[in-house]
Amino acid sequence: MEITRHNFKQVIDQVSEAVDEASFLCIDGEFTGLNNGPALHGFDTPQERYDKLRKGSLDFLFVQFGLCAFKYETEESRFVARPFNFYIFPRPLNRNAPDCRFLCQASSLHFLASQGMDFNKVFRDGIPYLSPVDEQQMRDTLDQKHATQQLNSPPFTSGSSHTSDSGRTIQVPAEHKDFIQQTLTRIQSFIDSEEETLQLEPCNAYLRKLIYSTVKNKFSSSVYLETKVGEQNQHYFIEASKANEELLKKRGKEKRQQELDELDDAVGMSKIIRMICQSGKLVIGHNMLLDVLHLLHKFSYPLPQEIDEFKSLVNCLFPRLLDTKLMASMHPFKELVSNTTLGDLEATLGKEPFKVPVIVFPEDFPGYKTAQEHQAGYDAYMTGRCFIIMANYLGTFKSQSKPVLPGSALLEPFVNKLYLMRVQDIPYVNLAGQDLKPNRDHVFHVTFPKEWKSNDLYQLFRPFGPIYIAWIDDKSAFVALTKKDQSDLAYKMLCEGVSYRVRRYGDHKEPHASHGRKRPLSFPETIPPRNGEGKRLKVTSSDVGRVSPVTQRCITTILEEAEDKPPTEAGEEEEEEEHGDEDGDEMKEEILEEKTNESTQAQLFEEPEAW
Amino acid sequence: MEITRHNFKQVIDQVSEAVDEASFLCIDGEFTGLNNGPALHGFDTPQERYDKLRKGSLDFLFVQFGLCAFKYETEESRFVARPFNFYIFPRPLNRNAPDCRFLCQASSLHFLASQGMDFNKVFRDGIPYLSPVDEQQMRDTLDQKHATQQLNSPPFTSGSSHTSDSGRTIQVPAEHKDFIQQTLTRIQSFIDSEEETLQLEPCNAYLRKLIYSTVKNKFSSSVYLETKVGEQNQHYFIEASKANEELLKKRGKEKRQQELDELDDAVGMSKIIRMICQSGKLVIGHNMLLDVLHLLHKFSYPLPQEIDEFKSLVNCLFPRLLDTKLMASMHPFKELVSNTTLGDLEATLGKEPFKVPVIVFPEDFPGYKTAQEHQAGYDAYMTGRCFIIMANYLGTFKSQSKPVLPGSALLEPFVNKLYLMRVQDIPYVNLAGQDLKPNRDHVFHVTFPKEWKSNDLYQLFRPFGPIYIAWIDDKSAFVALTKKDQSDLAYKMLCEGVSYRVRRYGDHKEPHASHGRKRPLSFPETIPPRNGEGKRLKVTSSDVGRVSPVTQRCITTILEEAEDKPPTEAGEEEEEEEHGDEDGDEMKEEILEEKTNESTQAQLFEEPEAW
Repeated sequence: MEITRHNFKQVIDQVSEAVDEASFLCIDGEFTGLNNGPALHGFDTPQERYDKLRKGSLDFLFVQFGLCAFKYETEESRFVARPFNFYIFPRPLNRNAPDCRFLCQASSLHFLASQGMDFNKVFRDGIPYLSPVDEQQMRDTLDQKHATQQLNSPPFTSGSSHTSDSGRTIQVPAEHKDFIQQTLTRIQSFIDSEEETLQLEPCNAYLRKLIYSTVKNKFSSSVYLETKVGEQNQHYFIEASKANEELLKKRGKEKRQQELDELDDAVGMSKIIRMICQSGKLVIGHNMLLDVLHLLHKFSYPLPQEIDEFKSLVNCLFPRLLDTKLMASMHPFKELVSNTTLGDLEATLGKEPFKVPVIVFPEDFPGYKTAQEHQAGYDAYMTGRCFIIMANYLGTFKSQSKPVLPGSALLEPFVNKLYLMRVQDIPYVNLAGQDLKPNRDHVFHVTFPKEWKSNDLYQLFRPFGPIYIAWIDDKSAFVALTKKDQSDLAYKMLCEGVSYRVRRYGDHKEPHASHGRKRPLSFPETIPPRNGEGKRLKVTSSDVGRVSPVTQRCITTILEEAEDKPPTEAGEEEEEEEHGDEDGDEMKEEILEEKTNESTQAQLFEEPEAW
Repeated sequence: MEITRHNFKQVIDQVSEAVDEASFLCIDGEFTGLNNGPALHGFDTPQERYDKLRKGSLDFLFVQFGLCAFKYETEESRFVARPFNFYIFPRPLNRNAPDCRFLCQASSLHFLASQGMDFNKVFRDGIPYLSPVDEQQMRDTLDQKHATQQLNSPPFTSGSSHTSDSGRTIQVPAEHKDFIQQTLTRIQSFIDSEEETLQLEPCNAYLRKLIYSTVKNKFSSSVYLETKVGEQNQHYFIEASKANEELLKKRGKEKRQQELDELDDAVGMSKIIRMICQSGKLVIGHNMLLDVLHLLHKFSYPLPQEIDEFKSLVNCLFPRLLDTKLMASMHPFKELVSNTTLGDLEATLGKEPFKVPVIVFPEDFPGYKTAQEHQAGYDAYMTGRCFIIMANYLGTFKSQSKPVLPGSALLEPFVNKLYLMRVQDIPYVNLAGQDLKPNRDHVFHVTFPKEWKSNDLYQLFRPFGPIYIAWIDDKSAFVALTKKDQSDLAYKMLCEGVSYRVRRYGDHKEPHASHGRKRPLSFPETIPPRNGEGKRLKVTSSDVGRVSPVTQRCITTILEEAEDKPPTEAGEEEEEEEHGDEDGDEMKEEILEEKTNESTQAQLFEEPEAW
């Protein structure tokens, strides 16, 4: 169901009902861009990735929000899906509302528009929103204004907040004297007539101001003026009505109510997000880290600097999250799914050994007859399909024929972990505890002249076997050895380069990690080698207390895996930006060829032992 | 005529012909936002206004460009108008092209979308552009690449720039071994067959990479692979053809030509702008300062810091400009035109004493049957209509029945001056010389607690007569006295305020003007008063050398006028943002009421004596 500001009020109860009844909720967001900061790369730590997204991704606009509520009907053994597709746009509703400036990324807009996103609908009909902070501020302003008005007489003019304006009037310029005189005459006749209202000719803001001022002067409070908008929003005109104290009081009250209603409208989309938070239900997304960041940033509170505080905030607002891209990358799906982009995943899950469940749309509810990829509502629906199929597949290990629903222990290994795009050895942000800290003794930070291409790096490291390159910028990269036992030798041979500089990952990271001074990234001739020490943070008992037994076992396994298996060529898989540009597919391939050419990827992590 | 990237190449000759034949050209631009910096206000100097626009307005995107070429046909005594409406969007055409990030302003997008701007067309079908700097950079990169390729063997793969990549191959992961083996078998059969090409199944970027790598390894240069896009851009697939040295050379040459063509496409819209510049014709816009800034910034060179250098740049690129909003604000039109927004102006010029000229569209040329306000092509057309009517009206003073065309001395007073929006006493940026420096001895810079509203300022200055307030932010404003002779008294009485601070305009400006240290804008108790001195810059002889006699006379008159006439209430007129939000009309009115409430405006400037 498409939802814009025009039908928002009519359907909000329906959304609320769908959320209340749901077994779980799926979400998806579309944005005007992805990244405006330093490039994401394969050895970002979770904190670094969080920083990059927080600083580089949140100035883009959230233009479409998909919510699909899935309800399991036991008797019918089927799921009922209610997909809602919200168009969002922060149009300033009145002069107290902020007029938002936001960023766009050309490739993202082109991609979304080619996929059928209707930006005209977004900009024209999008639902507005206010963060709690903005809402409070506007509410305070309004309260203050109303308190002032209570102290004064009822407002004379509809738009005016200057009841104490000492009756100053504007002098009428010579060229407008005739016009104003005619208007005053018309109003006098109107007062003497039986008519209840009088519509004046449309005129511009300045002339309206002259009318307000002169009418106020001449007729005092015996007439009430109000600016109205003509048909098709083409013109503004003034409507006069006969005033008495009662009417003025009534109009004042109406005006205040209207302002409160406007504020309520301005809160708009935030209500839906709050509804989802308050439901406490399992919320499912596909590659959902960026969606979660945007939801928090736009609809709740400013994002904290530290990822641990971010996790606390997420835990408060979305107590249970599940990321289907991560799920599909983990055992037992990893072996069966070669490409985890949403479309490909859904195609794979439509075949053996997976079983397609019965999912229906309610009667008279607009569902989907054809694919509408990258429409947020459709993607949320697809995410739910994928989840149901994967969850049910887990059930087959226990010969369970009933669907596996949220709450099942089988799902616990996947809960509250958000997929970390393209990071080589840390598969997810762990919302339920400490993040993984894999050993990176075989990773080097290399700086070099900007003319260097990947081939120069391959040549440099050739004696030590295949490498994986994670480009930072055109003058630096992380280089990971596939043959981990060559690390010390490689460092010894390369650490005294002239045109380049090779440092151990740990040495490079140390100053940043301790928030100490940063060493310059220029080319001093020699730097005494230091061995990486104390870089691996084991799961401590306090962390263990916060995670479920299954999750904990899973983490331990992963830690060991991450240590034991260095990147291998075989592990490479296609890493496609979920919210990205299909054109970018080709582009990325070329960049891949240009820059890495022979990229490798770690066997990321291993399966929990819970099956 | 609507022009997108799809018909751009087909119609560029038609545009070129229209420009060549034109008597004059009208332009208009639509942007994704107006201002993201400090508020514009009524006492900005031209340099300050230029700074604000340069820093705060140019990160918005130029999404639509209107060009209307008007040609006068003497025999028919009529104008032929050819309006072109270009959709512009900087979609990155390939990996070497920058992926632009740009700003949007919510109110502007909402306004344009409600006026019918098709943003889907913009983002999907917009014509790309490159500045000369970007173009040169990309051309250099391409030249370098081609030079490298000449040194090596013809490229094996279409997308690859790594001909010297030492033949490293990617190891095929177990799950893809079958697929790759099948592919190799198919290619072997193809080589043994009579077929000339073979299309492989569509597959993802990673699998394509595996194919490239393994095929290269197995078949060396006996087969040529190329990635192609399937119908409707849905899929990428590989096409294989049989290779020999001749074919490889040919393909290499084709590839290089294709890359040059792509670059040519990427230059796109810039060609149109260069065409206009090279024509040297009179270019007319309505309130065109922002358009000119954007045109220079996006399609020519980075804008210089100093307005004088900006003027030199404009003079080089657009030697003759005329702003119809300024023209309509000057004698003899000022007395006849109460509102200079484009729509209202056109309506006014359709009535007596003005004469509507014959303007036709060429046969088979898409013109306008109904109004399409705020569509750039239509606005450019309307601007031309207004210009023709006003120019012809000037002719009536000399009893000239022929139309007044560019080159006529009657138009000189209006040439190379760009309207300065909302500035109280400086009507325009003078591209042909020094800007006006009106006396501002009656203007005070006032800082105060942010709780203050306009009424507090009215109370403060009440003893000295009516004032005009130009808000800077919520803690400072410029206040101009209407009774100029009260200036010294007002300063004497108010300069020692406790909660506020009043300084003379000259004292406030001095440090900035001399690029010296800035005084803090906090509230020190007293500051020794200084009289404004040396602030007025007379037109010097070197400036006079640069302006035409008529313009010079005009400037002199204006300088005197600006000194003699202080702001009066009577002079106020509606100041509506040309590129702004019609909704903003109402909003602005309210802000007006809220903040200035009794605003006044100088009799801006007087007529040239040329009639």
